[in-house]
Amino acid sequence: MGVKLGILGLGTVGTGTVQLLQDKGFRHPLLQEVEIYRVGVRSLDKPRAVTLPESVLTTDLEAIVIDPAVDIVVEVMGGLEPARSLILKAIQNGKHVVTANKAVISRFGDEIFTAANQAGVYVMLEAAVGGGIPVIQPLKQSLSVNRIHTVTGIINGTTNYILTRMQTEGSNFSDVLADAQRLGYAEADPTADVDGLDAADKIAILASLAFGGRIKLKDVYSEGIRQVSKTDIAYAEKLGFVIKLLAIAQSAAPLAAIANRTTPSSPLISVRVHPTLVPKAHPLASINGVNNAILVEGEPIGQVMFFGPGAGAGATASAVSSDILNLVAALKKSKTALNQLLACAHQDYCQIVPMAELVTRFYARFLTKDQPGVIGKLGTCFGNHGVSLESVVQTGFQGELAEIVVVTHDVQEGDFRQALTEIQTLTAVDSIPSLLRVL
Amino acid sequence: MGVKLGILGLGTVGTGTVQLLQDKGFRHPLLQEVEIYRVGVRSLDKPRAVTLPESVLTTDLEAIVIDPAVDIVVEVMGGLEPARSLILKAIQNGKHVVTANKAVISRFGDEIFTAANQAGVYVMLEAAVGGGIPVIQPLKQSLSVNRIHTVTGIINGTTNYILTRMQTEGSNFSDVLADAQRLGYAEADPTADVDGLDAADKIAILASLAFGGRIKLKDVYSEGIRQVSKTDIAYAEKLGFVIKLLAIAQSAAPLAAIANRTTPSSPLISVRVHPTLVPKAHPLASINGVNNAILVEGEPIGQVMFFGPGAGAGATASAVSSDILNLVAALKKSKTALNQLLACAHQDYCQIVPMAELVTRFYARFLTKDQPGVIGKLGTCFGNHGVSLESVVQTGFQGELAEIVVVTHDVQEGDFRQALTEIQTLTAVDSIPSLLRVL
Repeated sequence: MGVKLGILGLGTVGTGTVQLLQDKGFRHPLLQEVEIYRVGVRSLDKPRAVTLPESVLTTDLEAIVIDPAVDIVVEVMGGLEPARSLILKAIQNGKHVVTANKAVISRFGDEIFTAANQAGVYVMLEAAVGGGIPVIQPLKQSLSVNRIHTVTGIINGTTNYILTRMQTEGSNFSDVLADAQRLGYAEADPTADVDGLDAADKIAILASLAFGGRIKLKDVYSEGIRQVSKTDIAYAEKLGFVIKLLAIAQSAAPLAAIANRTTPSSPLISVRVHPTLVPKAHPLASINGVNNAILVEGEPIGQVMFFGPGAGAGATASAVSSDILNLVAALKKSKTALNQLLACAHQDYCQIVPMAELVTRFYARFLTKDQPGVIGKLGTCFGNHGVSLESVVQTGFQGELAEIVVVTHDVQEGDFRQALTEIQTLTAVDSIPSLLRVL
Repeated sequence: MGVKLGILGLGTVGTGTVQLLQDKGFRHPLLQEVEIYRVGVRSLDKPRAVTLPESVLTTDLEAIVIDPAVDIVVEVMGGLEPARSLILKAIQNGKHVVTANKAVISRFGDEIFTAANQAGVYVMLEAAVGGGIPVIQPLKQSLSVNRIHTVTGIINGTTNYILTRMQTEGSNFSDVLADAQRLGYAEADPTADVDGLDAADKIAILASLAFGGRIKLKDVYSEGIRQVSKTDIAYAEKLGFVIKLLAIAQSAAPLAAIANRTTPSSPLISVRVHPTLVPKAHPLASINGVNNAILVEGEPIGQVMFFGPGAGAGATASAVSSDILNLVAALKKSKTALNQLLACAHQDYCQIVPMAELVTRFYARFLTKDQPGVIGKLGTCFGNHGVSLESVVQTGFQGELAEIVVVTHDVQEGDFRQALTEIQTLTAVDSIPSLLRVL
């Protein structure tokens, strides 16, 4: 009854996906039905971070995509070929496909989706854009009732890391790039990232989903960040902007200049990647480092933004596995059974931790008599109950009373409350006007 | 062949939903199959922002939920009763249900989902939490392959609006509340919002989805913002924090204090709403005003955040309609047809606007000879091509050359490029080292 996966590739993403699927506790119960049936690798001898039965590993990737037992082919090998050919052959053999391959989808999406529609199979690609951030599925399902005006993304972590460091350190592009390469945040050949090509692949995919039409990659204007200087970052700062590499897909409707064109039969949009001055109050202005964010604007929803890790084994494995889960739910579907992802899946109650057992930091403000040794007495009371303090500061006076602000380390709330009860018995303490938890 | 809706309530959310469904162009094509079949209202005589045939409107809400022709009941009337009873009766009559009613779901989710599972129908609730932000569906589908550690939300717009104003203006709670009531951001009876009860309803729902177990609302600890003083906001600021009303659901796994409990058979979590000091660098710290945001942390994904409008007719109508769309896709499903939300839905190409026709703002930096009238000459060239300027500033010198920074209003890129070509012919202009677009 299990759904059999044929996984192509056991690099970073493949390994992350196998690790997730080999450790199913406390994840969605439907994952129990997923079986790692074949994993295609380049070499059987390479040391691996995951253990798989010998019978599962193979170097014959073509055999996986034509194997009648395989239900879903998971393409996480990357690169254009043989990935494209293997995906097409999997589709021709009636397999559903999950892929993380933005380069293949943005270039060959046309033939791949045409083949998939003919064969009656799904091609899922949540991992192709935004790493672990759920953005493909929300665009397809939750947001598609809207008329989308604009999709604006910071969807290349390397360039955002470089621009963030140029901004915070006042450094030059070439210096930060060299350091990013040393630290592994940029490739030895950084072209795909810094010239905006990776972001162009991704915005082509997002635009296609948001506007319901295919996109030719060559139509996507792409300008990278090599020419962004620290001088401009400094001027932008003074003008109230930060400089970000944005990928933008925009309906032509708001573009006044072309309003006099005849109503298009297919969506008329602009699609582009370029460094952009972003007003500091804009939601994308505060997306820093290797993070990604995608802002979707539409009618009637207004603005929604998705933020998270744009890359990494774990994040990408989450996206790949969520596509697998969606396919399992779709494949299980019969006329009588509900789709388990849409239905309520839990009949049992959670156990709720009493607040006294909560572990958190606290902020407390005390008003005390202005006499020596008060801070010491507070410290002693806290110590008596195992409450460790991060800071104790006498901040000033309120009339006759001294005001003391305390921030604790992580404590058990019950211990903290007991300490407060003891503190309230101190004659030196007048009152505790504020008590707040600290994230 | 259409899917027939019975809508209960034609207030703000109901009206927004009807408006969306009456205007289907450039939205998901599957919406074409949705028919507004009945709309239940309190009075037939009230003036409405939408026009509906007389035969559609009725004051007999019970007749809607038992009407054999109705496929989906959309409950957007709010309140506990008769909403609860009507939802249950709709389920008993085999209707799928879409609801925006957080109060009913958080209190009566138990009996509602039990009844729905018995009847084999769906109860969808995207609009119950976070307004238009897609968060219910990502939690159910995209993120459920993760082990969720924590869900942390700013999920009450009123309190976030009040705290944001207290922060930026240094005002007292009571003054801002009075003003928020005057402006319509807070209710005349603000209890549900400012005492954290609305947020408690919502975090109970999110916790249930994130941790796969039901939640008794009485187990949710709730503390509001009445006791947050401007004094504490100011101290928090100095310590590097902002104060937010957070709703938090957290797996007990990271809570060291209870690690020695026996492994629970059902999820062991803490669920709570309280004002919280949030470090300024935290993603939730910059969520201001009436916006909502939900941060989900899990393994292996790390942190993802969803941000957007937490309320409002349009945003909520988007969420309600996306649930309707999902049900239509689920109901259409047969053994041979693909789920149209998961499959590729577009075979046509988008039309891409040439960059020359793009309308955007520009930033440009010029190096010019230090002679009088240069700014005037630049201005003339821009004016010749219809480029309107927002600011022109001589920022200083680079050696012998004067440096001038220009920011334009929205212009057509082709016009701007033509102006630059003319500017490059000026003898006073040495070079244009930077050219960037402005969001």
